[in-house]
Amino acid sequence: MSLHAIIPAGGAGTRLWPLSRRSHPKFLLPLAHPRQSLLTQTVARLAPMCESITLVTGEAHATAATAHVKAALAECQQLPALEVLIEPGGRNSMPAIGLAAYRIRQRYGEDALVGSFAADHTFSDPALLRRTLEVAMKAAADGGYLVTLGIEPDHPATGYGYIKVARNADAGGNCGWRAVENFVEKPQPERAAQFVREGYLWNAGIFVATVGYLNQALRRHQSAMADTLEELARQWEECDHQERASRWEQLTPIAIDYALAEPEARSGQVRVVPLPAAAGWADVGDFANLTPACPYGGQVHTIGVAAGLGYHALATQAWHPAQVFVVGLEECVVVQTPDVILVTDRAHAQQVGQIPTYLAELGLDHLQ
Amino acid sequence: MSLHAIIPAGGAGTRLWPLSRRSHPKFLLPLAHPRQSLLTQTVARLAPMCESITLVTGEAHATAATAHVKAALAECQQLPALEVLIEPGGRNSMPAIGLAAYRIRQRYGEDALVGSFAADHTFSDPALLRRTLEVAMKAAADGGYLVTLGIEPDHPATGYGYIKVARNADAGGNCGWRAVENFVEKPQPERAAQFVREGYLWNAGIFVATVGYLNQALRRHQSAMADTLEELARQWEECDHQERASRWEQLTPIAIDYALAEPEARSGQVRVVPLPAAAGWADVGDFANLTPACPYGGQVHTIGVAAGLGYHALATQAWHPAQVFVVGLEECVVVQTPDVILVTDRAHAQQVGQIPTYLAELGLDHLQ
Repeated sequence: MSLHAIIPAGGAGTRLWPLSRRSHPKFLLPLAHPRQSLLTQTVARLAPMCESITLVTGEAHATAATAHVKAALAECQQLPALEVLIEPGGRNSMPAIGLAAYRIRQRYGEDALVGSFAADHTFSDPALLRRTLEVAMKAAADGGYLVTLGIEPDHPATGYGYIKVARNADAGGNCGWRAVENFVEKPQPERAAQFVREGYLWNAGIFVATVGYLNQALRRHQSAMADTLEELARQWEECDHQERASRWEQLTPIAIDYALAEPEARSGQVRVVPLPAAAGWADVGDFANLTPACPYGGQVHTIGVAAGLGYHALATQAWHPAQVFVVGLEECVVVQTPDVILVTDRAHAQQVGQIPTYLAELGLDHLQ
Repeated sequence: MSLHAIIPAGGAGTRLWPLSRRSHPKFLLPLAHPRQSLLTQTVARLAPMCESITLVTGEAHATAATAHVKAALAECQQLPALEVLIEPGGRNSMPAIGLAAYRIRQRYGEDALVGSFAADHTFSDPALLRRTLEVAMKAAADGGYLVTLGIEPDHPATGYGYIKVARNADAGGNCGWRAVENFVEKPQPERAAQFVREGYLWNAGIFVATVGYLNQALRRHQSAMADTLEELARQWEECDHQERASRWEQLTPIAIDYALAEPEARSGQVRVVPLPAAAGWADVGDFANLTPACPYGGQVHTIGVAAGLGYHALATQAWHPAQVFVVGLEECVVVQTPDVILVTDRAHAQQVGQIPTYLAELGLDHLQ
């Protein structure tokens, strides 16, 4: 049994600006490894169990993203097939994953098992992820479910969505999967603590299903999208850019979570396989959460406070970061690149995402 | 009647690090004018009323400081005499001013009127300063007093010392001067408000007296210093560096305020001439107080807060400052130079002065 991985790689990751830029989005940054980007690491950890990998990305990043995927494949013993689909525009994850799934159905048939994965998440134990995915694939193939992985929380995070596991529903026996009651949005701190006590799992946005199941579910909930995507997938090579773009524009921009996962959960069709916290999953969202492995980590000298967080663009021959001194400000975050200095603190790290839209007003579009 | 100005130019101004450095102290920075340093401006505002100017500075800055003085004199109609005395080491202001006074006595006699001035203060109305100094010179020459200027406060500053004016003592009639009861250290906010209500004046550290008076007062309070300085002044040209240094080391390091002004005030010998707030005096001490005229002022883009203060080293051909963005931090101060980024806020601006001593521990002496 092998997997067909779908990796939508879109979005700039604006909360990591100015490290991430429109021209150099988050998934191309080496945020958890000295050299490999998040995308390269994503492909490297999935490739050993994959028959094919489909990357769906935007035109602006297609060349770089393809190179990052190939950097991972160059290290592989057995090479999965690779397809790179260039979206004519960003329509959120459902159209991207749907297009990839129809392309996979054409080539591998209704029973092909697909898994969709974020391009910018990290795992410290990829083997544990792969073992857990095998359970999910079995649930999808044998049970005919939409299967997600649910990360066992090690703290009451407020930055992640949660999965509520059904208590008395079909638990998959000893097979390792449980029925999902529903998906819950990022909670306030008090509710997060309650969720952890009550055994909720973190939603990492990983979905596994047969391509046949996905096709039927999409037809049930987004029938117009299913028609357009099925046709687009069949005619993809023959269509020129303009034709692809005009059809793509008609698609509802919606995330797979809302388009499929939530309505299917309400119908009792979703199962979750718990992934132990030891797998070390993380969604590196903002400067408050960069991992110690991040090669952007620079030292901040603090005076009058306990700690400061410093990040800077990788030093190049032409540019060396300055020494950073923070006086009197708690948990101050300082990010430097040759053209931008960003100053915030841990509590305001999420607000960094507002800056890129603000740049146009300032006439500083070149910094986006 | 003309003045012999003494300008001690020592001290790095560590609270303005990293703009001010050991090799490039505060008085050499253009903090209140697009091009002229504080020292150049100090000389330019005094020169029109001076017969001579004596600069007392350290070896490390003698060349630059002399050039900054000459830059001011180049603009003068009538050129005052200039003497540059290089201190073998920093011993605070009394030895520096005392040495200069003895040198002036040798050349111009007991009745010469000397005035000592900080090298790093600013005035927006130099003509008003000069008119007020003429009153002070009259008080020093006719009354035989130690005369200081007292700035009329326009707010209850906590960063300046205050002068308490005697209520019923000899007020100099219509002449414009008043007896000083005592000098008061920088106050806490409540006391500062009380001082302003009760008519206290700010102490700008300006002292005017005849050189004969200064000599006698120094003999009364610091007789050993008087002996050493008188001899050093006489033999200055003949002494080699080592001889000057060994004598200089014996001098008590003490400020003129403690050595002369306070004890003389207790004896009823000090007079103050009020300088209207309109003269625009300021002691640019830290990043919370840089003036709008400061050419180091760079823009800070703020997100989620009302205001931020940004300063950067002057752009050079080889270096352009980065755009600075502050997210969520109130009154954040960001200073950038090619080798240092400093982050603090208005409330912690005074603590910046601690950094230079801390640099040695970090092995970053080259940034001092």
